[in-house]
Amino acid sequence: LYLCFDVGGTSIKAGLIDDLGNILGKMSVATRVQEGADNVVAQLAEIRNELCRNLGILPSSVRAAGIGVPGFIEIETGIVTRAVNLGWYNVPVTEKAAQVLGIPVAVINDANAAALGEMWQGAGKGEDNVICLTLGTGIGAGVIVDGKAVIGKNGLAGEIGHFCVRIENGRRCACGKTGCLETESSASAIGYYGTVEAEKGNSPLLAVKLKEVGKITSRDVTEAARQGDEAARNVIEQAAFYLGFALANIFTVNAPSRFIIGGGAAAAGDLLFKPTISSFTRFSFAGIKGEDIIVPAILGNDAGIIGLAKLADMKLKSTYPSGKDE
Amino acid sequence: LYLCFDVGGTSIKAGLIDDLGNILGKMSVATRVQEGADNVVAQLAEIRNELCRNLGILPSSVRAAGIGVPGFIEIETGIVTRAVNLGWYNVPVTEKAAQVLGIPVAVINDANAAALGEMWQGAGKGEDNVICLTLGTGIGAGVIVDGKAVIGKNGLAGEIGHFCVRIENGRRCACGKTGCLETESSASAIGYYGTVEAEKGNSPLLAVKLKEVGKITSRDVTEAARQGDEAARNVIEQAAFYLGFALANIFTVNAPSRFIIGGGAAAAGDLLFKPTISSFTRFSFAGIKGEDIIVPAILGNDAGIIGLAKLADMKLKSTYPSGKDE
Repeated sequence: LYLCFDVGGTSIKAGLIDDLGNILGKMSVATRVQEGADNVVAQLAEIRNELCRNLGILPSSVRAAGIGVPGFIEIETGIVTRAVNLGWYNVPVTEKAAQVLGIPVAVINDANAAALGEMWQGAGKGEDNVICLTLGTGIGAGVIVDGKAVIGKNGLAGEIGHFCVRIENGRRCACGKTGCLETESSASAIGYYGTVEAEKGNSPLLAVKLKEVGKITSRDVTEAARQGDEAARNVIEQAAFYLGFALANIFTVNAPSRFIIGGGAAAAGDLLFKPTISSFTRFSFAGIKGEDIIVPAILGNDAGIIGLAKLADMKLKSTYPSGKDE
Repeated sequence: LYLCFDVGGTSIKAGLIDDLGNILGKMSVATRVQEGADNVVAQLAEIRNELCRNLGILPSSVRAAGIGVPGFIEIETGIVTRAVNLGWYNVPVTEKAAQVLGIPVAVINDANAAALGEMWQGAGKGEDNVICLTLGTGIGAGVIVDGKAVIGKNGLAGEIGHFCVRIENGRRCACGKTGCLETESSASAIGYYGTVEAEKGNSPLLAVKLKEVGKITSRDVTEAARQGDEAARNVIEQAAFYLGFALANIFTVNAPSRFIIGGGAAAAGDLLFKPTISSFTRFSFAGIKGEDIIVPAILGNDAGIIGLAKLADMKLKSTYPSGKDE
């Protein structure tokens, strides 16, 4: 049995998961982020106790724990170097958690945890070379090669949101550059372009929404496109065009068996996936078919905790570096 | 000691290399490619005998062999599925060579062998996450993650030559697509654009060369640029612009510690590297400096055999899958 903690700035999603990936129990509690890292680590022990009590399981039957954190982790030492939403800078999370929990602990970035989860039990089942993208406010990604998350220089592997898809006339990204994939194909980008269409008067449906609610989300754009709004459909197709372009190019690096796409924008389903696949096929190497490779994520919010069980399993089997914890 | 055979369509480069990467002896012989795979494998034994005899070493002191092949290899089985220049299709090279040589054998794509060599003893020494590009007639690349070559779906990892750098107005590539990196930044591409400048009358130096020799190579363009020919310098700078653009985007995937650049076009030195680095820095994620990452290859033609020694070493230590050979 493995304890899994997906620690976010708002909540901790926790689960008790077996070595086959079955979730025996899970819960979610507000992160006591204001009270500092030690307090959050103490929370993990409380959650462990509650999960075990609820399930009638002895805490001693839990063999290892995996912790996911939204930030950069030095894998060799298990130190979280920077997790802005948690206010953690150079916190030795692995060491602290192992002391408090009394079992081996491995810590990883949350996007990598989700990617491991989708690889192990989700849309990448049976594969060991996949890339998992979450199209949300930004674009997060986890790159898996040989069954392990790639960390890269300064922890920057998977910063696919900052792949430049527009050399010219790109919008300014939060990162300071222009034309990043994130400014074209994230859920926020779809909302932004939907707003532009509403303001231009090209989309009656979105114009009404904008007037009523004051803003347009990717969900609104999807809804309008489903109702036949052409401008809304074009917004999604443009996002898909750039996403397919980026994925075809990214494919030339590791040639992953799957690109697994989740997050708010992926909720558009075929409206997004079909044009993404056709853009991918247009730009990709002869004979590679997008429909075999580009697939929706299927684990939703559970991807993180399931991936953390896989991580804990690798930790026990010593197939993953994970910092000093004994 | 390891036996290393870099088998090309024209010649076999062979070496006897120790586990520290020292080349004790090497030789090059014409590949008996017309006589079929079995005959080429028999050549390997002859080369082994000659190398050992020359060095006064007993063949029994060789512990494993690495073989590099220009083509696609099914790593799990050690079968070369396709090596056009050798005329090999579905040849179980690992099995055949292990039988003939009587030692464990590992087979790998030649670009991956060179990348392993540069990682182990060359410009990537001390790193385990690097990408090695050869800018020649085409663009070959080896992607190394966690010290191992990434193979990918259908063996397509590292097909970076077909990264699309021009969505519009790209030249037709041999692969059938347009705007591939190979059509902009390979040695051939530099030669092509040099020819265009010569024909347009923009480059007096290249025009003379074209008239004398009938064609322009990347070496001619470099030479002209060194002599102050502005059109020639622009050709190299354009190749560098697209190369830097591709590398900055490729960086977002695995975040390699090094991009190691070799091949004919790399001989331009700073003329190519400086603008490549500035293009990389322009398109890359905040804080990442191209000059720390983009470096010239240093092992030249020996990269392959040195990488094959590393492969043979990994084979012995069972850290690399390499087909049935016992």
